Amino acid sequence: MHVVYTEIRRADAEVVKGLSRYGVATIHEAQGRTGLLGPTLRPIYPGAHIAGSAVTVSLPPADNWMIHVAVEQCQAGDVLVVAPTSYSDAGYFGELLASSLVARGVRGLIIDAGVRDVHELTDMGFPVWSKTIHAQGTVKETLGSVNVPVVCGAGLVNPGDVVIADDDGVCIVPRLEARAVLTASEAREAKEAATRQRLQNGELGLDIYDMRDKLAKRGLVYRAQSLPE
Amino acid sequence: MHVVYTEIRRADAEVVKGLSRYGVATIHEAQGRTGLLGPTLRPIYPGAHIAGSAVTVSLPPADNWMIHVAVEQCQAGDVLVVAPTSYSDAGYFGELLASSLVARGVRGLIIDAGVRDVHELTDMGFPVWSKTIHAQGTVKETLGSVNVPVVCGAGLVNPGDVVIADDDGVCIVPRLEARAVLTASEAREAKEAATRQRLQNGELGLDIYDMRDKLAKRGLVYRAQSLPE
Amino acid sequence: MHVVYTEIRRADAEVVKGLSRYGVATIHEAQGRTGLLGPTLRPIYPGAHIAGSAVTVSLPPADNWMIHVAVEQCQAGDVLVVAPTSYSDAGYFGELLASSLVARGVRGLIIDAGVRDVHELTDMGFPVWSKTIHAQGTVKETLGSVNVPVVCGAGLVNPGDVVIADDDGVCIVPRLEARAVLTASEAREAKEAATRQRLQNGELGLDIYDMRDKLAKRGLVYRAQSLPE
Amino acid sequence: MHVVYTEIRRADAEVVKGLSRYGVATIHEAQGRTGLLGPTLRPIYPGAHIAGSAVTVSLPPADNWMIHVAVEQCQAGDVLVVAPTSYSDAGYFGELLASSLVARGVRGLIIDAGVRDVHELTDMGFPVWSKTIHAQGTVKETLGSVNVPVVCGAGLVNPGDVVIADDDGVCIVPRLEARAVLTASEAREAKEAATRQRLQNGELGLDIYDMRDKLAKRGLVYRAQSLPE
Amino acid sequence: MHVVYTEIRRADAEVVKGLSRYGVATIHEAQGRTGLLGPTLRPIYPGAHIAGSAVTVSLPPADNWMIHVAVEQCQAGDVLVVAPTSYSDAGYFGELLASSLVARGVRGLIIDAGVRDVHELTDMGFPVWSKTIHAQGTVKETLGSVNVPVVCGAGLVNPGDVVIADDDGVCIVPRLEARAVLTASEAREAKEAATRQRLQNGELGLDIYDMRDKLAKRGLVYRAQSLPE
Amino acid sequence: MHVVYTEIRRADAEVVKGLSRYGVATIHEAQGRTGLLGPTLRPIYPGAHIAGSAVTVSLPPADNWMIHVAVEQCQAGDVLVVAPTSYSDAGYFGELLASSLVARGVRGLIIDAGVRDVHELTDMGFPVWSKTIHAQGTVKETLGSVNVPVVCGAGLVNPGDVVIADDDGVCIVPRLEARAVLTASEAREAKEAATRQRLQNGELGLDIYDMRDKLAKRGLVYRAQSLPE
Repeated sequence: MHVVYTEIRRADAEVVKGLSRYGVATIHEAQGRTGLLGPTLRPIYPGAHIAGSAVTVSLPPADNWMIHVAVEQCQAGDVLVVAPTSYSDAGYFGELLASSLVARGVRGLIIDAGVRDVHELTDMGFPVWSKTIHAQGTVKETLGSVNVPVVCGAGLVNPGDVVIADDDGVCIVPRLEARAVLTASEAREAKEAATRQRLQNGELGLDIYDMRDKLAKRGLVYRAQSLPE
Repeated sequence: MHVVYTEIRRADAEVVKGLSRYGVATIHEAQGRTGLLGPTLRPIYPGAHIAGSAVTVSLPPADNWMIHVAVEQCQAGDVLVVAPTSYSDAGYFGELLASSLVARGVRGLIIDAGVRDVHELTDMGFPVWSKTIHAQGTVKETLGSVNVPVVCGAGLVNPGDVVIADDDGVCIVPRLEARAVLTASEAREAKEAATRQRLQNGELGLDIYDMRDKLAKRGLVYRAQSLPE
Repeated sequence: MHVVYTEIRRADAEVVKGLSRYGVATIHEAQGRTGLLGPTLRPIYPGAHIAGSAVTVSLPPADNWMIHVAVEQCQAGDVLVVAPTSYSDAGYFGELLASSLVARGVRGLIIDAGVRDVHELTDMGFPVWSKTIHAQGTVKETLGSVNVPVVCGAGLVNPGDVVIADDDGVCIVPRLEARAVLTASEAREAKEAATRQRLQNGELGLDIYDMRDKLAKRGLVYRAQSLPE
Repeated sequence: MHVVYTEIRRADAEVVKGLSRYGVATIHEAQGRTGLLGPTLRPIYPGAHIAGSAVTVSLPPADNWMIHVAVEQCQAGDVLVVAPTSYSDAGYFGELLASSLVARGVRGLIIDAGVRDVHELTDMGFPVWSKTIHAQGTVKETLGSVNVPVVCGAGLVNPGDVVIADDDGVCIVPRLEARAVLTASEAREAKEAATRQRLQNGELGLDIYDMRDKLAKRGLVYRAQSLPE
Repeated sequence: MHVVYTEIRRADAEVVKGLSRYGVATIHEAQGRTGLLGPTLRPIYPGAHIAGSAVTVSLPPADNWMIHVAVEQCQAGDVLVVAPTSYSDAGYFGELLASSLVARGVRGLIIDAGVRDVHELTDMGFPVWSKTIHAQGTVKETLGSVNVPVVCGAGLVNPGDVVIADDDGVCIVPRLEARAVLTASEAREAKEAATRQRLQNGELGLDIYDMRDKLAKRGLVYRAQSLPE
Repeated sequence: MHVVYTEIRRADAEVVKGLSRYGVATIHEAQGRTGLLGPTLRPIYPGAHIAGSAVTVSLPPADNWMIHVAVEQCQAGDVLVVAPTSYSDAGYFGELLASSLVARGVRGLIIDAGVRDVHELTDMGFPVWSKTIHAQGTVKETLGSVNVPVVCGAGLVNPGDVVIADDDGVCIVPRLEARAVLTASEAREAKEAATRQRLQNGELGLDIYDMRDKLAKRGLVYRAQSLPE
């Protein structure tokens, strides 16, 4: 059965805003190296960095009908997450749908398929992370569902999860863990700032992280010579 | 037998010029969702947008000899379309060949293989859509043909077809259909302009395209709740 | 056994500087179409162009411990070359490690795996050629070796080899051949300058390279007509 | 935190046995075209056909430690489902681990990574569906979890779900839906048996499924000629 | 517009039968190294070898409706060739459609997409060359065309062309060239038989093909030593 | 310069024979998890298992001339290892070349490209590990080298190295290490035989390998419940 759930639980707006200050790599680490979608999802232009609440769409290959349905379920601060039920590289999304999402305050699109009109989307400043860029048109014939769990970029996304996306890719933070992950991200960033300064001053990670003993115990051998030829 | 056809029938220059005002996605839709080459062909730099008449080259893997032959067959307003007879990612084309094509007024290159000197080509403003960027040199040992039908990016290209290429990829318009496709593109663009305005004003595609009834008839269910956990 | 060789033989600094004036395509051709790493290695931002001496790292999939070890072996003018022992697209490297390498005067990174923090690396102007961009974190559990021969991007790199990288990809010049390749690159570039001028003036490669006879002998047929329909 | 859940709820053994009579394609259709894992998962030898309850393992790339942990959680009739947290094609599993699973009555392995000893596994008749065959050894250094939800072959698998696998690939039936899917599979198979007979007798699907009207309404045109040349 | 051409011109049955005696590699060579479809098309079981006349189908991604239409256009000795208009790995075809084709005397299927029920198809002895094996179901919503030119496996197939397929892949012989290609195949096979005998007796290709002089002229150097270490 | 080294140093025949008793996975582990070629190299038929001395060929994409040159350098017990200098999936090798190699006592072929006539090669029992199966013909125009180091399947192969290949793939043992690797393989196999017996009897790897403490120290948590829903 194909269902549109018209309600989703979103993370607190302040928490989302807090997470938006950190990059994908930091947040992924802060939540224990989980939540990354796969590296096949790439931004259509460099420099975008967004955070928002996931509105999810499960739909058929090469059929974008359900995106029109999903637009109505979006509100300001959301990020649309679209996943076909089998492989498709078709161009589900272009500048008309983007105009509609912009009118509702949506911050961007994550799609495990193709996108088109990328020149116009770049001019509009509407960021998209997609598997490919492809002008191939889609049909509007077959139903799917909105605000159900989807597998996108080989990762699981639930409606209302926090989506963070930047030049490194896309990371998902489960709604109920968002506040804890924000706290962990702040802590990680603070710690890295200190480390960064020491590294810039020429200290070595070997010393800062106290690795020399562990390396020796594992058996690493140093030879004060070049490789014999 | 390897043949160079020295004549090709080109579409009317005014029609090509007209098509150059529209993007790949619009033209692909206007001709009934046909003509796209595959999404593996990507521009070497963003922002290029060309239209021109195809001069086609069929040549061996990792052998660019026939490109030199094809240059002589090009005239102002043409686009060179190069397809190896089996998979190759070698770098068939660089800035010297580009200099030669620029001198003849050629508008760009579509190649189902690799290209090199992309920094120089970007500086020259000579656009290329290719499968990969690869400096790998090629030989000049084996013949091919010029101005024969080729399969490029999994699509068919005949000599004299109109080639449109932009950030979305490459679309081919058969020569004899070019005028009709131009008319259809103009109509589509006019219609989309009106739709775009309504979407920007916050109207929904569901209403503009009158989709609600059809969705209900297919059985779409709305639940005024969030997904049960 | 896992070994760090703390000495490497580097090419003469003047030779490396000389090679830095030429692009990857030119140097690859000048050394007889050898030395290219595969086209899967792409720069994280356009326009970088470096030359330096290879410090090599062989390490496990999804484990970046040995990069910390390798940093200490780098000196000004080096390029770090990192190759996992089996396929990995994990994000081995980010801005903290880059800060450390910058402090030592390292010119860039070649890695047959993933990289992260690409926005920060771009801002720092620290160039990386990688297989993918991926925030996926790595562990520090298993040893590898430093300054041993590695296969990276399907090409062989020995410690001390000269690495040249630009928008076209990455080329390796064996240390002992570096001076000869520099001479050959200078000669090639001089010859190409003359050819470039002639091509820009509208002369054809067919004539400049005297190809017409050879083509005819191989049996190329010209037909003063278009392809029969 | 890394956790081993030592209990899972399994589907009724009679239901699993019932499902084992149907192929992956039938069951996938019977549950509304859902549940398929991606086509990258292929059997190491033809002809295997299994059904069982999923014991799931989430583990690091190129580290098979958690499989040893998971073995203890398996009982007769289970199928082990293994998913790395990022891409790995390493050889996590071979005949020793298979011997251990056979001793516990496990029916097979689904792994979104590599497997080795395939000759021995074939001789043992222990079926594996994997992304690749690769002898690459793995380490035992980093923890993961057992009996948590995993994304495997781009599909979601929960512990206790029913796994069906045959030459067509792998299909997952959620535990709570297993009985209903069995009923639907029986119905579908019965219906197909009748259709099969009619098709074998030369009747056309166009008539059996009553498609001609719908095709005509959509505008399909028949031309009693061959394509004009 | 979507059209079914109900007539196709087929090659002479005797010529097709003649071609069926030769493998894909021989025929591909005999027609000047043309006509091969790409190596992504693989047989679902080893040992099949067919030749027949192409009935072609162009259809949407993940929609197999037009295959039902095409069945009616097939007659004994035909081979069905199916190409989606954009990338699809869905399972368009299974044993029910195969039963229908067998009833009409069709010899096999070439499909640039997925196939399912491969165990049953193997038992039936109905050969399929496909891009993948995938149980993913398709819809019946959108039209396509039958007996129009299609690009399949990156090669062009016209209705009525002769299709030859074996363990090496698929080769297309244009209908009008079929007789000449048969003659050339016979000649090639005769010549190879003599060469095979000489090679089996230990003569070298270097001598049989008289290559030594040409190699020397190109500059090949023999060194009566092993590579210096 | 293109060179044929007519001498290679081979490992002792008894050592090669000894290694032939072990599979690729065992030998790869016995030499410290090194030497594997990538999993893209697959056997054309199941069940082959060979060991021999590498005769190496470096040659251009889609040009098999140098294989004819290399045949003359082969002797009984050798394995031919062929690597193009850039990507090629063309069909370099078929049954005629195999006949020639069989006449010289060569045990098989490893090729980082395509192979054809696989039905005939299977009938002959001549095993090939290749990247793809493709009938695409090659030319004989450009030189390469024989018995130089090559990168094949992303691994380094030197002439005279021992090649072991089976259903798991291909492993290279450096000539000078062959005897030590044989000893290590024997030891590993002996140890595994004992472990195998214990596992078959139902003992757990957790106990045999004494893993429980290490897991607990790393922080693995057991929960005597199923995952909360």
